[in-house]
Amino acid sequence: MWQYMTPGIPDEYFVRGNVPMTKEEIRVLSISKLRLKEDSVVWDIGAGTGSVSVEAALISKKGVVYSIEKEEEGVRLINENIKKFNVENVVVVGGLAPDALLDLPSPDRVFIGGTGDKMYQIFDIVTTKLKEDGVVVVNGITLDTAYSAHHYFKQRLFTVQTICVNVSVSKEAGNKTMMISQNPVYIITVKREG
Amino acid sequence: MWQYMTPGIPDEYFVRGNVPMTKEEIRVLSISKLRLKEDSVVWDIGAGTGSVSVEAALISKKGVVYSIEKEEEGVRLINENIKKFNVENVVVVGGLAPDALLDLPSPDRVFIGGTGDKMYQIFDIVTTKLKEDGVVVVNGITLDTAYSAHHYFKQRLFTVQTICVNVSVSKEAGNKTMMISQNPVYIITVKREG
Amino acid sequence: MWQYMTPGIPDEYFVRGNVPMTKEEIRVLSISKLRLKEDSVVWDIGAGTGSVSVEAALISKKGVVYSIEKEEEGVRLINENIKKFNVENVVVVGGLAPDALLDLPSPDRVFIGGTGDKMYQIFDIVTTKLKEDGVVVVNGITLDTAYSAHHYFKQRLFTVQTICVNVSVSKEAGNKTMMISQNPVYIITVKREG
Amino acid sequence: MWQYMTPGIPDEYFVRGNVPMTKEEIRVLSISKLRLKEDSVVWDIGAGTGSVSVEAALISKKGVVYSIEKEEEGVRLINENIKKFNVENVVVVGGLAPDALLDLPSPDRVFIGGTGDKMYQIFDIVTTKLKEDGVVVVNGITLDTAYSAHHYFKQRLFTVQTICVNVSVSKEAGNKTMMISQNPVYIITVKREG
Repeated sequence: MWQYMTPGIPDEYFVRGNVPMTKEEIRVLSISKLRLKEDSVVWDIGAGTGSVSVEAALISKKGVVYSIEKEEEGVRLINENIKKFNVENVVVVGGLAPDALLDLPSPDRVFIGGTGDKMYQIFDIVTTKLKEDGVVVVNGITLDTAYSAHHYFKQRLFTVQTICVNVSVSKEAGNKTMMISQNPVYIITVKREG
Repeated sequence: MWQYMTPGIPDEYFVRGNVPMTKEEIRVLSISKLRLKEDSVVWDIGAGTGSVSVEAALISKKGVVYSIEKEEEGVRLINENIKKFNVENVVVVGGLAPDALLDLPSPDRVFIGGTGDKMYQIFDIVTTKLKEDGVVVVNGITLDTAYSAHHYFKQRLFTVQTICVNVSVSKEAGNKTMMISQNPVYIITVKREG
Repeated sequence: MWQYMTPGIPDEYFVRGNVPMTKEEIRVLSISKLRLKEDSVVWDIGAGTGSVSVEAALISKKGVVYSIEKEEEGVRLINENIKKFNVENVVVVGGLAPDALLDLPSPDRVFIGGTGDKMYQIFDIVTTKLKEDGVVVVNGITLDTAYSAHHYFKQRLFTVQTICVNVSVSKEAGNKTMMISQNPVYIITVKREG
Repeated sequence: MWQYMTPGIPDEYFVRGNVPMTKEEIRVLSISKLRLKEDSVVWDIGAGTGSVSVEAALISKKGVVYSIEKEEEGVRLINENIKKFNVENVVVVGGLAPDALLDLPSPDRVFIGGTGDKMYQIFDIVTTKLKEDGVVVVNGITLDTAYSAHHYFKQRLFTVQTICVNVSVSKEAGNKTMMISQNPVYIITVKREG
């Protein structure tokens, strides 16, 4: 269990398979950009290992996190991580977005870690169902997602901020300290109001 | 007042003078690396505008944040920001570290945003007074601080991780989106245990 | 005059006005990606101060560089820099691309530092006129240019490589060394052959 | 053979073993910072695969490049690459710096790609033997080399510039374009004159 009030659970604390995972620093910044409240209803679309779901659930203790994941392996990992971190407010939704989103309660917050080929359909549902003062955060590791997400929401007159984050992490090599790069990630943050 | 459970108050929400300020994304990552608990005793050394103090105080609601700042202008800004964000668990300590640290209660967490010329003396006091399971986070914008902080603690057998963070932020320019860089910041995280 | 065989003339050596300028490190990488030959015919579209034209002309001594620039101020600066660096193989073309490109000799190499609103028309002319073993290098400071240039050429079955370059440069601050960021630049390199 | 006038031979063109290699973009920037002349005498200390030596030799056609490398495997690779790129002005010096440097002609230019444990002794020899208008370029992948090289030369009143370069390179993933990071490299450029 995580005994701290701050997000930033180390990657290796999660049960992981071969499923891609949002890295610690990117996860922390994404959670921050989501501006969670204690009772937020959160959608985590393309939840992967569930690392963002777990962190969100630990913060929005009186809310609910819907963790949507199409791969069986992912669903299994999310369930394991829910158990490991002892969170009771995550609902795992096995299925493919956007269809899997249709019957969920309207979200206050949406995190989109992966969109596959149906990005625009997912964005359409999200913008339809997002509550008035809602926030959407998208992570992109491709130029395509960064550009397309930014412009989709900009054209619909949302307030959009995109940051690109390059993190390198120290690694001791003998008595010297190397810096090892993570790949750059674009974090696109979207709000309805101006 | 800040109504969210997540750190990441936008820079412009703080009362600022000409005092240097830890930028939002770096502040969020630093707060995360501090691994705050609800009742943590925190030292914020070189507190500047008090932005880290305010964010830490909002999270460690039952703890106390000691906000140490030598400049009168800084002390004034910290007090204004405490009032603005309505936090009651920040104690402002006007004075110069390391002397100003001598009579403070031992910290669970230490954030060092600026060290001036007395970096090693500050590190010495911090390592002496830090509690057993304590965490120290240093921000460095110079090669000197990054290298020196990392090695000071490594040589004393602390666990040290340094990350270098390059963030660029979108800015709309007509119908296009430019990316504007912030300067790189080194975040050095130090723990006693292995 | 520049007495070295290597590209990388410091920015401050050029006569500059308020015209945007390709910074030294980005210019060096762009010149490298252009793979100039001694007799290359080069188009420098949106030449600005002419810094890329000058560097290309110094290397392709037996070739010709066509320096296309729509702003009068830019044309004046290019002419001043041609004189300052004593290059005789730059032809300044005052006018707006793509129209200004129509009567120029087919290029071996094309550098596009700025495209304004007519990016796709410029790309169309460039792909029509580019010689068989030609190379095109585009600099982008917006997500839009990076994404659009990459995909325009990818869809037309060119070989495309995009790099994103973040450079920070030391600045002495007292006895310490700060690192100051330049904005990220995307360098898109395009070749006809696979 | 390389038929272009510009540096920037792709990494995969070189014969490589398990020896670390200066990547294309870093090599290009380092060659640029060296400000080679046609007749420069260059030392390439810790030459690895010889990639910098080959690029320098192609530019300084009337000069000589001394390629110093302690590992047998490295010496073999350098010789293969000399042959492959058909350069005749590289002299391979098998041996350990600083000892291997003692009998070499004074250099106009020095590139230091790797220093092992004898960095300061190497710097001492280099500063003693470097010609009046000489240039030294050091590549560092560790905080230690960046800090130590910068300060060694700064304290001896050389002009020192350090840049930190983060490059990410596109990789096609289906119909999207990912950006893959290289590790950050510090390039320290040193000149005698102010």
